[in-house]
Parts: sequence; C-alpha cells; structure tokens
Amino acid sequence: MATSEPTAAGGDQDPNSANLRPSSTNYDAWMQGCTRKLGMKICGFLQKNNSLGEEGRLSGALSERQKNLFTCENSDRDVRFRRTETDFSNMFARDLLPAKNGEEATIQFLLELVDILTNYIRKTFDRSTKVLDFHHPHQLLEGMEGFNLELSDQPESLEQILVDCRDTLKYGVRTGHPRFFNQLSTGLDIIGLAGEWLTSTANTNMFTYEIAPVFVLMEQLTLKKMREMIGWPSGEGDGIFSPGGAISNMYSVMIARYKYFPDVKTKGMSAAPRLVLFTSEHSHYSIKKAGAALGFGSENVVLLSTDERGRVIPSDLEAKILDVKQKGYHPLFVNATAGSTVYGAFDPINEIADICEKYNMWLHVDGAWGGGLLMSRKHRHKFSGVERANSVTWNPHKMMGVPLQCSAILVREKGILSGCNSMCAGYLFQPDKQYDVSFDTGDKAIQCGRHVDIFKFWLMWKAKGTIGFEQHIDRCLDLSQYLYEKIRNREGYEMVPNTPTCVFQCVFCLQEYREKLHKVAPKIKALMMESGTTMVGYQPQGQKVNFFRMVISNPAALQSDIDFLIDEIERLGHGL
Amino acid sequence: MATSEPTAAGGDQDPNSANLRPSSTNYDAWMQGCTRKLGMKICGFLQKNNSLGEEGRLSGALSERQKNLFTCENSDRDVRFRRTETDFSNMFARDLLPAKNGEEATIQFLLELVDILTNYIRKTFDRSTKVLDFHHPHQLLEGMEGFNLELSDQPESLEQILVDCRDTLKYGVRTGHPRFFNQLSTGLDIIGLAGEWLTSTANTNMFTYEIAPVFVLMEQLTLKKMREMIGWPSGEGDGIFSPGGAISNMYSVMIARYKYFPDVKTKGMSAAPRLVLFTSEHSHYSIKKAGAALGFGSENVVLLSTDERGRVIPSDLEAKILDVKQKGYHPLFVNATAGSTVYGAFDPINEIADICEKYNMWLHVDGAWGGGLLMSRKHRHKFSGVERANSVTWNPHKMMGVPLQCSAILVREKGILSGCNSMCAGYLFQPDKQYDVSFDTGDKAIQCGRHVDIFKFWLMWKAKGTIGFEQHIDRCLDLSQYLYEKIRNREGYEMVPNTPTCVFQCVFCLQEYREKLHKVAPKIKALMMESGTTMVGYQPQGQKVNFFRMVISNPAALQSDIDFLIDEIERLGHGL
Repeated sequence: MATSEPTAAGGDQDPNSANLRPSSTNYDAWMQGCTRKLGMKICGFLQKNNSLGEEGRLSGALSERQKNLFTCENSDRDVRFRRTETDFSNMFARDLLPAKNGEEATIQFLLELVDILTNYIRKTFDRSTKVLDFHHPHQLLEGMEGFNLELSDQPESLEQILVDCRDTLKYGVRTGHPRFFNQLSTGLDIIGLAGEWLTSTANTNMFTYEIAPVFVLMEQLTLKKMREMIGWPSGEGDGIFSPGGAISNMYSVMIARYKYFPDVKTKGMSAAPRLVLFTSEHSHYSIKKAGAALGFGSENVVLLSTDERGRVIPSDLEAKILDVKQKGYHPLFVNATAGSTVYGAFDPINEIADICEKYNMWLHVDGAWGGGLLMSRKHRHKFSGVERANSVTWNPHKMMGVPLQCSAILVREKGILSGCNSMCAGYLFQPDKQYDVSFDTGDKAIQCGRHVDIFKFWLMWKAKGTIGFEQHIDRCLDLSQYLYEKIRNREGYEMVPNTPTCVFQCVFCLQEYREKLHKVAPKIKALMMESGTTMVGYQPQGQKVNFFRMVISNPAALQSDIDFLIDEIERLGHGL
Repeated sequence: MATSEPTAAGGDQDPNSANLRPSSTNYDAWMQGCTRKLGMKICGFLQKNNSLGEEGRLSGALSERQKNLFTCENSDRDVRFRRTETDFSNMFARDLLPAKNGEEATIQFLLELVDILTNYIRKTFDRSTKVLDFHHPHQLLEGMEGFNLELSDQPESLEQILVDCRDTLKYGVRTGHPRFFNQLSTGLDIIGLAGEWLTSTANTNMFTYEIAPVFVLMEQLTLKKMREMIGWPSGEGDGIFSPGGAISNMYSVMIARYKYFPDVKTKGMSAAPRLVLFTSEHSHYSIKKAGAALGFGSENVVLLSTDERGRVIPSDLEAKILDVKQKGYHPLFVNATAGSTVYGAFDPINEIADICEKYNMWLHVDGAWGGGLLMSRKHRHKFSGVERANSVTWNPHKMMGVPLQCSAILVREKGILSGCNSMCAGYLFQPDKQYDVSFDTGDKAIQCGRHVDIFKFWLMWKAKGTIGFEQHIDRCLDLSQYLYEKIRNREGYEMVPNTPTCVFQCVFCLQEYREKLHKVAPKIKALMMESGTTMVGYQPQGQKVNFFRMVISNPAALQSDIDFLIDEIERLGHGL
C-alpha cells in the first residue's frame, strides 16, 4: 500500500493548529503557489512515480518539522486526497479507521467508492443507458453472476465490498434517469446528493441542539421560510421534518385531536366522543392509515366525493358533516389535498376553510406532492386559501427534487406540537443545560432519534435560491402542459380526466384498448420494465380501469423524453 | 474549466455496451496494461500537463472510434475520475448535471466535496482535534465569520456552497470522535458511511420491489438473519426497518392491539375495552409516547417498579396486572427492556414471559440499545428468553455502530404487520404486476415512502461478518468493565447503581459533590462542551440527582480515552 503523503495542504486551517504552522518563508512561498483562496483549489495530481519524485524534490527544501505537515496523522491541517494504486483484495473493514495507520486505506477505499458512484451518476443522466436491468426476485436471490445477497459469519475483502457496491447499483433502478417517470419523487439533484453525503459523514441526530447545533438551526430557519410561503403572518408557527408525508399527515391528525381534546393524550380515546375525519376519495391513503393507527378507526375516516376533475365537492363535505353530527359523532378534521396522488387535483381550499370555520374543525392541507408550487409566483394560486389551514404537509422530496427523505409538517399554532407529543425525558432534554433549551426539538416529535433531513434541502435552497426552485417548478408545469396537449391531439389517446386541472401530472389511457386496457396497461408496463427503456406508473381509480399516470418532476426530463415515452408505449403495446 | 477526458477506462463494463467494444489488439493490450481484475484498479494519476501529454501519446495509437471510448459523454463504459483545477466561483448549481456538458463540473464539484469530507473524517479520528467547537444558538444565528444560515432568493456560487459545507462541519459535533461518549449512537463506521453515500446516490424508496429490487431483498434477508439470532424457528416471522426505535416500539403496540382487538383498525378504540400497557419506570419514554399517540392515553401505560439494578420486578408486574383486571380494564402488552436507556439494565425476560403467557398478553422486548448483544456468544445470555417475545425492537444504529438511522421491528407472527397496517393503495401496490408482489413491502408500514436504511447495515455485515460485530460488542463490554473497575476503585466516585449489571454503560457520580452534584454535573458538562475536549451525558433518574452516564459504543474509543474522560471531569470540576 502506498503511504499517505499528500501533495498539498489546503489553506483553510483550524485556528487551534496555528502553533503547528511553520514560519519558514520557503514553505510559505511554496504553499502560496500550491493553494488558492478558500483552500479549495487543487495543487496538482501526480502519477504515483512522478509524485514520489516530486516529494523527493520538495523534501530537500523542507525541514523535518515541515515535512511532518505533509503526513496526515495527527495534523490538524487540511490535506488533499490523492488516489493511489491500492490492492483491496487482502484488505478488510478492520484495516480502515479507527485502525492504527488506517487513514490511507480509508481514504483510498472511499475514493474507489466515489469512482463507482460518479460513474453511476454519469450513466444515470445518459439516455443511452437503461433505466433498469429488470430481474425477478428469485433471480436476484439465486445470485446474479456472483452477486450474493446472503450474509455470512466471515468478513469479505474490501475488493468484494466494492464489487457488491457496483452490483447493488447495477441491479437497481436509476430513479434519476431522464426517462424515469414512475414515482412522484424522481431525479437526482447533485447539490442534494452532496448534502446527503455530508449528512451521513456528520452522522448525528436531530433531537438536541447539543449534538446537532447547525442542523437544528437550519431546520428552524427553513421551516420559517416555508411558513412564510404558506402565508402565515411573519412565518410564525411550528413544524418539524418527519420521515415522509404519511407521518406528516399522521402528525396533523394527532395535533388536531390534541387541540380539541387534549385529555386524549393522557386518558385515551375514551376521553373524547366518537371523532370523525374527512378526506377526499382521491386523497392519499395515509389519512385513513393515520385514522387506523391513532385509534379513530378507518371507518371514522369519511371519504368525500369529487367532481370530474378529482376535486372535493364542498357541498358533499358539509352534508357529510351534518350527517355525522346528527349521529352524535364529532367532526374533527378535514384534509384538503393540494396535488392528489393520481390525478394531481387541488381541492378548493377556501371553500373547505369556510366550512371548517363554520363547524369549528381543524383544516389540514396535504401538499405533500403539490407543495413545491408554493415556490412559483405563476402557479401558487392553486394553493389559494392555504394560509387558512391549521397545518400543512409539504414534501420537498417530491416536486422540488430534494433527495429522499424530506417531508415537513407545518403548523400554524406555535407550541402545539410540543404540547401534543412531549414526554420530558430527563436523560435527553435536561432543563439545566447551559444553552437555550428551546432549541432542543426532540420532544416535539413522535420519534426519539431523528435523521438529519434538513441539510440537503437547506443546501439546495442556498445553491438554487428561491428562484431556482421556482424555475424548476415552472419548467415541470410547462412540460406537463406539453404532454397534455400532445395526448389531447393524438389519435388513440384520451385524458383521464379530460381537463387540464392537473397539468403537472398527466393521466391518460389508450382509446384503442379502452375495453381491454385494464389488462393491457400492466402488460405494457411489464414489457417496459423488461426492456428497461423507461418507467411510468399505471393504476385504476374508482370506476376507471387501469390507465397511465405520467409524473413530471425530474429536472433531467426534456420534451424529447416525453415523446420517447409515448412512442415506447405504442411500440410495446403494438399487437398485444 | 478542464475538459473531461478520462485517463483510463475500467474493465467492468456493462454487458449492453458489448457492441461498443473495439476488437483492436492494440487497444486490448493497452487496456490490459492499464486495468486489473474487477476494474477497480487505477491506471494512473496524471498531473494535468502530464496527462495531456499522455493522451497525446495514446491518441496516436488509437482509432477515432477507440478514442471516443475515452470521452465520458454517451459512453456506457466506466471511466475513472480525475481531479482538475476548477474555479467554482463563477459556477452555479444550474451548471451541474443534468445541464448540457455538466458532467465534468459535476464530477469536480463532488470530488471537491469528497475532499472536504475526507478531511473531516481524518480529523474525526484524530485525538488532537476537538470534539466540538461550541457556540450558542444566537451566535450561530448571527453568522460566524461569514457562515450565514439564512436562505435567500438568489443562488450562491458553488464555491460558496463548498464553504458552507466546510462551515457546517466545522460548527457541528464530531460524533465519531474517540472521546465522544454522549449518546447511545457514537462512532463513524467507514463501511456504513460508504453504504450511506451509495444509498443517497441510488436515491430510491423502499415501498416497492419495482423501484428498489435489491434493497428490498437485502432487507428481507437481513431481517431473517436477525430473527434467527433472536431464536425464532428458521428465522420465520415478519419485520421492517423503521425510522428509529421509538417508531419500532410504536409498531409493537399497534400490532399487539391488532392481534387481540383487530376491529380497532376499522372501528377505533371504542371497539375494545380500556387497554393497558406495562413497562418499566426505567424504560424508554417512547412506550408512553406510543400510548399517547395511538389513543390508549399515557395514563394507561403503567410503570413497573425496578430493583436496585434498574430491572423490572416480576412480582410487581403481576400485582399490577391483577389490579388492572380488577378494575375491569384489559392488560394487553408488556414491554421488557433489554438495555435500558440510562442504566443499561436488562429486564428478566423469561420471568416476564411466564407472566405474559399466564395472562395471554403480548410480550415486546425493547432491545433498541442492547440488541447488538445478540451477536455476541459471550453476552447474549442477557437476552435469555427473547425467543419467547412476540416482537423485538433492535437498533443496529446504536450498539452496532451502523450510521443513523437503522432500527428494526421484528415480529414472530408472519403477516400480522401487513394485516395491521395495509390499506391496499391501488396506485402503488397494483396486484397485477408482472413480479411476485409479496415483495412489495410498503403496505406493512405506517409510512408510505420509506428511506433505504438497510444497505449500510447489509454492507457492514458483509464487510465485518457476524464475527466482526461480535468482536466489536465484546470489545465495548470489556471497555465498560474497565471503566467500571476504574470508578469502583477510584476515590471520590461511586457507581449508580453499585453493581456491574450495566457494564456496557457506566453510570456514576462524584461522592465529593454528592450533595451538590445536581448542580455541579451540568456545570462540568457546560465546561466540557466549551472546552470541546470530550462529551458525556448526565441526567437525574427517579430520586437520584444528576449523575454521569458513560456510553461505550464507539469503536474508536480506547482505555486511554476513558482515562482522559475521568481526568477531564476532575480537571473541570476542580474548584466548582
């Protein structure tokens, strides 16, 4: 294995290491030549032999103390990585840090991995590669060309580990591929990815300021910006990042219950009358799931009828509230969906808010999917009335392209999250800490430990600015308008529903197969996955048989990719 | 900006690109010289000028078609990264992929980030660096030396983004530092970190096999191994990775309720009698939190008395069950803690299981913290009886050093997770897919989208083997025994409790300050954080005033680090 002499040291040093800094002018001059502002420039990349020669040349001019600066160990000074030819076949995890002298092996192992990852990233954006290389579960379980998923007692070499990493990516699905349209979360944002790499390197936990000071503050500031976009005065209120939209929606139901029946927290559901939740028949299933989990019962989640565009009919809501009241039950909560899962429909928030005010009910807006539109001056009108909501779910990991997972529950009333969930654990949330413990946010959560979901989002916001997100959103909507027009004008297709309300998500079926479409769509999808060329989802909805749902949230997708998809559906469907 | 010619192409090519492979013997011979088995070796690192020369030399011997292989764009062939001197000050997120010609900028940006991260990793393991550089919230909010947390409308340059990344790490806490003892999750495992970098690059979602085929299978196989270690016959049963131990514990309560009162799922808590949960007064607060959230009410979570070592007293459990029954309520669920949060105590599982069987109750074992001991032949006896549990929480992200987050809920009865939580969403879990849809695990979860938590754990298991985890666990327990002996034999200290049951987590106070320790411990901790030399937690428990809790799960910690901590407490406490 090669030794770990760096070829250059960065200029951004830890102030604590100032005493290690040599004063030699020779050294300073040499450093000057090699580094540039912010310490982020590269001095040079030397081939192994060359670099040895270079080191030899340098070492003549440097004192012993100065030379020590160029070894990695026990130096506070930043050093720049250099890849060396490393044989990983006889190396194991135990040879990496914190092993003694494990530093060089660690860096080389990580660089080798980064090579695999950057190749994967290159290919992800390359239209000549497949979206996936499909295999059935039994095929992968049997082991593909030496890719053995089974775990064993003995360790594998680092070489094998790197091969496993390659294979894991090889048999996976490129969700960032320009022709991946299968899910609401698509794309691979490079800044977001960088944020995740840093997050996992920092490997900390959101529950206290004590061990996540920067991330906790970033979360606070970002949630405030989001509340400002919702339109709550001065961005006041509360909120937290949660592990996905379903959990964010669950929070909203819990908070609503706590607001109106706080005794349920201590005494259980028997402390309240029979409570009823209302949500669209087109809404996400997580509202029903929350009803089941939290002890309401899924039958006490009343589904609201929708119009031909998939939007809740307000008069149906009011009628169902009255019906529930007449039975002696208590109408507690209405969920208005802003961007429904299949149609992409927006419920009329203002009209629903009027009804909620009239009957003193909690209004939640599930903007898990649609939330990103709040960043667009052109399209945020779809959220008209959202500022009247008591709580809002907004998943930056969907429309805004933030890597998974990144979901926020935002609440208008300050302090209620904590009131609802706090248990005041003495070992974690000591009141006698030296800092302002209102920054310890852990007791607001239903989790204890909480993954750092904020950093990637914060970093993307810094890197793109609000206007960058806006441009992305506007582009996606333009593109879906393109698809809408294309489908509408193309023989053999029809829109479901036949209106442009859901222009950022196009739902269509093939007239040709109308009768047999229910069976044809899964077949086309299966062929699509086997050929690996593109991916799009299909599903039935209500009385409607299987149709395709085309999601456009991928920043890499172009009009030509949409053309490709339509052509591909026709090609694969031909002769079925 | 430099162009993107790679210096070499790896040998591990995509089979689909076989038609791109040149047959020229010249080329093959050259490739042979440059690559080695598995395509993971490095051909050479050339300084920018040198590499241009090298390319010039090579290009003479290669045809035009062959040369195309060495450019990155639209080639399926792996290429190796090369760092170049890149000026990021005029580059923005919009210049990265999927931007046209964004590939080189993307790679260079990521390499620059990796440089920052590898330097951070180096320093993390370096005892001469601080564990943290503490600042109060208001200081960070005011902006430290240009580190501005506020978000704005306009984008920042990539140079600034890289500086933000550096600063984020600079003002954070090095949870992998050998002297970080503050949390149950400590350490920075390099393989686990590699796993996280890959996970975020793959950026997919666990809900369906369709988009996470490899990860879904890894989860299945790993859960099976974990169930085998618990001792369930043939590793049969069910399970899922969840966002932390609190959620895993919440799952256990939900499943128990579904098992005995399945109608609650549809009809709500009114379909059951008043249900009561039992857990130790020393157990994690998440059981109480689950009781509050799920509609039982926190008052219906009965706390059990413990002996002097912090273990549940079985006779107290039985007495309290009888008391509850006498009141006409229904005793549903007992949580036995295996590794309590503060004392590290193990409840007597077998005796509790006897009682659960007698009263037909669900037995859950919360091994969030202690679970790792199941990997150790020497120490797994502490879990004696665990195979009798109906469900088990086990967080590999704690004792086993897997990066956050990685928590599993394991269930003995197959199918019950799905029964409890499924809502059969048609847009995601289509029954007419072409593959075996029993591999679509999303409907088991209370989440919809679910982060890929499995890969890092699977990769660590591959890299260490079961024996590697065992060695880590045994080492941690030896080290805590060392601390235990040290405290016991040192004047001025005493153990709380004064027994070695909790040897992997040493809890002690200073006799010298016994009277005023409640105020002194927070002061010592504050000084510790301000000096940044080490970190350890303190808390009160029951009638006991503040004492220190020393957690040993960090693979980097040595005996000398424990000595350092004790000396540091004395140094900082001197004169208070």
